[in-house]
Amino acid sequence: MLTESQRDRIEIVLVAPRNPLNIGAVARAMANFGFTRLTVVAAYQPHWREARSAVGAPDLLQNARETSTLAEAVADRTLVIGTGTLTRRKPEQPVLLLPALPPIVAQELARGGRVALIFGPEKHGLTREDLSWCHTFVEIPTDTRQPSMNLGQAVAVCLYEIATRIAINESQAAGPPDPAATSGDLDILAGLIGEVMVAAGYSPQAMQSANRHAIRLMLRRLHLSSADQRRLLGLFRRILSSYRRYPNRNVAN
Amino acid sequence: MLTESQRDRIEIVLVAPRNPLNIGAVARAMANFGFTRLTVVAAYQPHWREARSAVGAPDLLQNARETSTLAEAVADRTLVIGTGTLTRRKPEQPVLLLPALPPIVAQELARGGRVALIFGPEKHGLTREDLSWCHTFVEIPTDTRQPSMNLGQAVAVCLYEIATRIAINESQAAGPPDPAATSGDLDILAGLIGEVMVAAGYSPQAMQSANRHAIRLMLRRLHLSSADQRRLLGLFRRILSSYRRYPNRNVAN
Repeated sequence: MLTESQRDRIEIVLVAPRNPLNIGAVARAMANFGFTRLTVVAAYQPHWREARSAVGAPDLLQNARETSTLAEAVADRTLVIGTGTLTRRKPEQPVLLLPALPPIVAQELARGGRVALIFGPEKHGLTREDLSWCHTFVEIPTDTRQPSMNLGQAVAVCLYEIATRIAINESQAAGPPDPAATSGDLDILAGLIGEVMVAAGYSPQAMQSANRHAIRLMLRRLHLSSADQRRLLGLFRRILSSYRRYPNRNVAN
Repeated sequence: MLTESQRDRIEIVLVAPRNPLNIGAVARAMANFGFTRLTVVAAYQPHWREARSAVGAPDLLQNARETSTLAEAVADRTLVIGTGTLTRRKPEQPVLLLPALPPIVAQELARGGRVALIFGPEKHGLTREDLSWCHTFVEIPTDTRQPSMNLGQAVAVCLYEIATRIAINESQAAGPPDPAATSGDLDILAGLIGEVMVAAGYSPQAMQSANRHAIRLMLRRLHLSSADQRRLLGLFRRILSSYRRYPNRNVAN
């Protein structure tokens, strides 16, 4: 079983949940399996207030964090995992079935990392944009005739799997040689690379949003360590400042 | 993964569920994991009708069976599994944690058996009386500070575990040498033994209900085969008829 300090390094993130009963059910499943950290992104305020004020709502709902963007919610995480079914999308990142997830999470915790498990809105799940912040996509193996799970039930099943099947020797987590870069660090690097692309006239204006999306995905595929991120950041800063010193190098597009 | 014919031999039984939203959530989890057989015991009719007529209710709710007693619901089953937490009770039958359940169910299906998974009412779970029809009690490993799960989430977690972790070679199921006695067969035997106890003046009137309870549990502990049950039935029928022929043997209590 997971220790308390390991559970504290696993955050549940709900993106734009709508139904207050579902939010309550998520909180209850978290309490059942001993998880305490909840973040709600772009909460619909009337329903969010209703969920928090429900009779018997667990403390973790009172203590939940609110952010307006997913990027902000996962900025301090080193492994971001999106959840859902594959019927309506083909993710651009590696796809795992849920039973294969516990060793991945265990490894990340042993490295000293911090994990986020992301659940999308009830109606349509996570968007392609949301998923571009995810290192991995996890699918609950459901029946193809009725693949889409209720939000509270999906969270219960994922947390049951993680809480029950991870056994980590806490001592393994001591002294990680090279911790992973956080999601926020990757965003800073991606932003800088984007500036370099513009400065270098790498692509027409119309392509800039698509390029930013592609860079975000690529940086997550690479599983950069924190040291890697600093190295690349130094490199791209230097490139950018060279353009600023010699603006004539700035090739027109 | 389970085949369709294996899933058809696993029945979900809800004892006196109250909340129509929970009944709907149970049906949805069943559809998500490909299970179709639902029985509701002692349904509270207004809520049961509401659950069945809900928009988007899966077909399996329309086809659900209704019984007034749990004995009737599990009469044709060869392995009856009660679910819940251990905070408020100490079951009289073997207790398993959920991750240990799949091999037990797999073995029963391979023998050609039929399984029931029983969930109690939301408020208090299965009673001691309910559990006396169960061969085994299964506990979902939850946090001791918040052990009690929502009904729909508990069903989702149990069905996820069974659907995902059972792999059975269908050919194994062919030609079971000696199938298990059904729950109904065990009840017939228990009834007969009860009559013999009365005829023999085995125990004072006041103890008869406690004895019936103890016999019910014992017969389930023995995992009688269908042939065993017929053998014991023959024996106790003979004993009972001997009392009837020579009523003076009927020792007073």
